[in-house]
Amino acid sequence: MPGYPKIVERLIEQLGKLPGIGPRSAERIAFHILKADEKDALALSQSIRDVKTQIRSCKVCFNLAEGELCEICADPRRDRSIICVVEQPKDLLAIESTGAYHGLYHVLMGHISPLEGVGPEDLTIDALIKRVKAGGIEEVVIATNPDVAGDATALYISEALRGVDVKITRLARGLPTGGQIEYANKTILTDAITQRQKM
Amino acid sequence: MPGYPKIVERLIEQLGKLPGIGPRSAERIAFHILKADEKDALALSQSIRDVKTQIRSCKVCFNLAEGELCEICADPRRDRSIICVVEQPKDLLAIESTGAYHGLYHVLMGHISPLEGVGPEDLTIDALIKRVKAGGIEEVVIATNPDVAGDATALYISEALRGVDVKITRLARGLPTGGQIEYANKTILTDAITQRQKM
Repeated sequence: MPGYPKIVERLIEQLGKLPGIGPRSAERIAFHILKADEKDALALSQSIRDVKTQIRSCKVCFNLAEGELCEICADPRRDRSIICVVEQPKDLLAIESTGAYHGLYHVLMGHISPLEGVGPEDLTIDALIKRVKAGGIEEVVIATNPDVAGDATALYISEALRGVDVKITRLARGLPTGGQIEYANKTILTDAITQRQKM
Repeated sequence: MPGYPKIVERLIEQLGKLPGIGPRSAERIAFHILKADEKDALALSQSIRDVKTQIRSCKVCFNLAEGELCEICADPRRDRSIICVVEQPKDLLAIESTGAYHGLYHVLMGHISPLEGVGPEDLTIDALIKRVKAGGIEEVVIATNPDVAGDATALYISEALRGVDVKITRLARGLPTGGQIEYANKTILTDAITQRQKM
């Protein structure tokens, strides 16, 4: 029994592996691509390739970067004495959008979660400790999510930095516990940054 | 204010143009691609490119094809005296899956729908008429959807073929096997009664 041409089947299968896309959506998207302007479809193909080949982690803070350093680490106007620790690049962008923070960042690339098999060694915590111990840092603002995993991660980091001469703060609990930073609005995030508490 | 690197922003924007994918999903998929195996992501990129560069319409029936002819038109075992007219390649596959049809197809690439700005000239109806007039065809089975647009399209085609020496049929209407009379709507029951068959 004939099916779609193999090339089309393969595209449908690969689209179906993307998050939130089931077999029906994958088929619909594949047909959309078949009908779309050749220019648009090839641009999408190229963008996927570009993202995989040209985007890397900033060698200092692990934010997304096109070169060795991300835009923020490369920006001479940022306050280099303060590091804001976030779980993921999305959280960094959410904090940037408030305009209330002018220091550097450190992206953990996740949170400690024994249930998901993620331990401290799977995150960029070691690199953070090294960065802080290298000196010149006055404050570390821990901006992990206000949930169980985020709190555990924050606690782990503050313990790991015990004895290092640096002020450790974390975002104020203006944030609704159980929520997620990427969904918080600007006002809530601004409150959280300006009212950060000493740990 | 910094955002994601431009390459990532571009990918998110392009993903957001796909059907059923909003800005949030586009972002989620972009991050999935960033984290995914390089091999998988590049394979997806390549598949999109392949589909656009290697898949075309069969020059006879407009089904998806890797060469000039689709698998069905190229198959010498198919009955070349009968053409089944469908709206889209998906419908062709659905009919093939029954194993009850052994003729050729003609894919209209849509249905007549003045509200969506689709007229007969936007479909492959002219090519169908030419095919039938070229001779050797004994029957045209119209298998457009049993809805308003499908019926209008079927009517248009049967009018366009008036005077041509060919039998024109269309898919039977009636109760869906496995269904229940008490849940069938009036239109279905009316079809079932008026087109009742001798046992």
